[in-house]
Amino acid sequence: MTEKPDVPEQDEAAAAPSDDDSGAAVAETGARRGVSRRALIGWTGGALAVGAGAAGGVAAAVGGGTETVANSTVTSVPFEGPHQAGIVTPVQDRLHFVTFDVLTDDRAKLVRLLQQWTAAARAMTQGQPVGKGAVDGIPEAPPDDTGEALGLPPANLTLTIGFGPTLFVKDNKDRFGIAAKRPVALADLPPFPADNLDPNRSGGDICVQACADDPQVAVHAIRNLARIGFGTVAVRWSQLGFGKTSSTTPDAQTPRNLFGFKDGTRNIASDETSRQDEFVWADGSDWMAGGSYLVARRIRMHIETWDRTGLGEQETVIGRTKGEGAPMGAVKEHDPVPLKVLDERSHVRLSHPDSNDGITILRRGYSFVDGSDGLGRLDAGLFFLAYQRDPRRGFIPLQQKLASQDRLNEYIQHVGSAIFACPPGVRGADDYWGKGLFA
Amino acid sequence: MTEKPDVPEQDEAAAAPSDDDSGAAVAETGARRGVSRRALIGWTGGALAVGAGAAGGVAAAVGGGTETVANSTVTSVPFEGPHQAGIVTPVQDRLHFVTFDVLTDDRAKLVRLLQQWTAAARAMTQGQPVGKGAVDGIPEAPPDDTGEALGLPPANLTLTIGFGPTLFVKDNKDRFGIAAKRPVALADLPPFPADNLDPNRSGGDICVQACADDPQVAVHAIRNLARIGFGTVAVRWSQLGFGKTSSTTPDAQTPRNLFGFKDGTRNIASDETSRQDEFVWADGSDWMAGGSYLVARRIRMHIETWDRTGLGEQETVIGRTKGEGAPMGAVKEHDPVPLKVLDERSHVRLSHPDSNDGITILRRGYSFVDGSDGLGRLDAGLFFLAYQRDPRRGFIPLQQKLASQDRLNEYIQHVGSAIFACPPGVRGADDYWGKGLFA
Repeated sequence: MTEKPDVPEQDEAAAAPSDDDSGAAVAETGARRGVSRRALIGWTGGALAVGAGAAGGVAAAVGGGTETVANSTVTSVPFEGPHQAGIVTPVQDRLHFVTFDVLTDDRAKLVRLLQQWTAAARAMTQGQPVGKGAVDGIPEAPPDDTGEALGLPPANLTLTIGFGPTLFVKDNKDRFGIAAKRPVALADLPPFPADNLDPNRSGGDICVQACADDPQVAVHAIRNLARIGFGTVAVRWSQLGFGKTSSTTPDAQTPRNLFGFKDGTRNIASDETSRQDEFVWADGSDWMAGGSYLVARRIRMHIETWDRTGLGEQETVIGRTKGEGAPMGAVKEHDPVPLKVLDERSHVRLSHPDSNDGITILRRGYSFVDGSDGLGRLDAGLFFLAYQRDPRRGFIPLQQKLASQDRLNEYIQHVGSAIFACPPGVRGADDYWGKGLFA
Repeated sequence: MTEKPDVPEQDEAAAAPSDDDSGAAVAETGARRGVSRRALIGWTGGALAVGAGAAGGVAAAVGGGTETVANSTVTSVPFEGPHQAGIVTPVQDRLHFVTFDVLTDDRAKLVRLLQQWTAAARAMTQGQPVGKGAVDGIPEAPPDDTGEALGLPPANLTLTIGFGPTLFVKDNKDRFGIAAKRPVALADLPPFPADNLDPNRSGGDICVQACADDPQVAVHAIRNLARIGFGTVAVRWSQLGFGKTSSTTPDAQTPRNLFGFKDGTRNIASDETSRQDEFVWADGSDWMAGGSYLVARRIRMHIETWDRTGLGEQETVIGRTKGEGAPMGAVKEHDPVPLKVLDERSHVRLSHPDSNDGITILRRGYSFVDGSDGLGRLDAGLFFLAYQRDPRRGFIPLQQKLASQDRLNEYIQHVGSAIFACPPGVRGADDYWGKGLFA
């Protein structure tokens, strides 16, 4: 294990694979110093037009044989900032989400890991391999980076960390001396009607959400964090999401979920800073100021049952037309929702802010298919991810209502659940994930 | 169930969603009659630059707000032909693979399903929804199409069908009167040393491989085939692949597997017709002429163990350098392999055609991550897919050797297995998947 919590030296990283930079011309117009190692690797026929969607209307040209690699300001998301990236960042195409159990009671060891993770996250989100020696280091030592993302662009990778209730107190034990710092907003989620939670898909001391426009990049990132944490943390559960179901890109097309419907058409967009301040970012002056609270729910969708349901019933249950996605009684997707026209127990009517004293959450969920369930059905659904300023005035009251009334409950079941406090963003080379909590 | 084995009428499909064609300009320069329904749906901010990789160097321009939709000759693969698409077709980015058990003994019912599937596959691969009424049909009836791919381009979707040994004889019963037509090349795979096969991830009467550059398109296709087959077939198992590990695109970059290595750098390319005739396509005059045999193996990769292995050991085990992917003792990836220089039990030396009387298979495998395994490790690996003219002179002797000698066996385990006879391509409106077998 040779990872260091330093900022990787870009020049060194860029200079390393001198026998790899054959083939394609690389256009680099960004203001950053140096270019990423990955961008130097030649491409002679692969696809490169990533990030155009998430960045919202960026010109990407792909020519025959020789290709122009979009510069890093286009395909990478800054790691530092007042807030963590991956929350209001335009939702990328793919997800790899993981939760870890911390195996040690040693606070210094945990802090050391958070520092190592921060350095690795900083490198990977900028398209650089983990560690200084990358894969071409000392033969006797395991390579610093596992290597499967070599040659791939950053693909707008974001890594977002969160701390679960069990990091603060587990089995009545304050392992790391942080119990007093547990935010009240990091509430234990109450049991909801019809929950059917699998403990092996719930909870976790720490979560990391990796979002990217290339799944290999997201998987590589989580795998390398798990590797760095070997012996200190163990993967509790992980979830791949193959298709986003929400967008935070201003004016973007709302993606469809596995029921074929658009949902959450009035999501908080990446440029709506006042709505973000009102609904997403924690305030105050403690370590969570500028952070956010994440609720993750694995929602199994009984798609075979849904698929045998008439169109009228489907639209009534949701409260929108299937084709256009317009609220029932309206014409276009973004028309005002005529709440009184909708079925009283329709999903849109029950969950609309106007039915909930204005409660609004930021959604970043992804569709999943995890093979089949042994009963001839696809094990598929929505991996629901919602960020909010305070779950006690966000997901919890909303779900208490939905769980008891939503007509959609006939077709879905919540099978996994977790909540996390996601600290504010990292600022400066000395900062690290969770420094405000531990320092 | 209203699906019909007819070719969907493009004009009708294109005309249907008149309230959907707002927003973006659609450039349609293809020679096909009509445009797909999906291409008519407006895009105001989403990403569209799909297919550029698989099509190999296609200019795709994405402007702010209004976007140019690539025409269907760019992002779709022809459904008809002497061979099924999805075999030598340039490997798309994502996979959804499924096997079905046939629930009925009624031959006519099975044939009817194959006809319905063929019509649906023909439509979906061209970017059209299943059925005539699509989602905006009769309120009391379930929509013909499940809807989650509405608005998405065809994304080079291919659907490839195969018939397993159990379709011919199951429990000593010739359910469909086709036992005599079982090809000798559709051999039962023998047990290999170190196999640890899960019956719930092995076998199947019928398989369908969906490959596309958008996972939502691949998932949609399999889900709709499963839906059409409800009552006649049941999903036995399914597998998502998030990243291709092989390429059939001429001169393409070889993708990396989850061990971070390039493997199979001399794969058969889509333009190498003479190698295809020699190694991929079945000949003769029976119903399989022009078809191919598919071996699917789910290979768990013990990535945590691998990640703690020194670089020298990793490179010796594989027989290539990690960074460049050059054979050990050579300089560049595509340099001739100096077999005698490589470790005798290295993966490359053992599996190279020159070590196996020229045996060559076409690989189309994908990386998978299916969450974690309950022991703190990622459940990840390679979903190996190989096409060949005759598995008795392809995968079987190759794997008999590898399973007993390959140094890689310390880091991998085969946990799922299946073999299928994939018939030749569909030709003409009266043809359907497997007609040569059943007619």
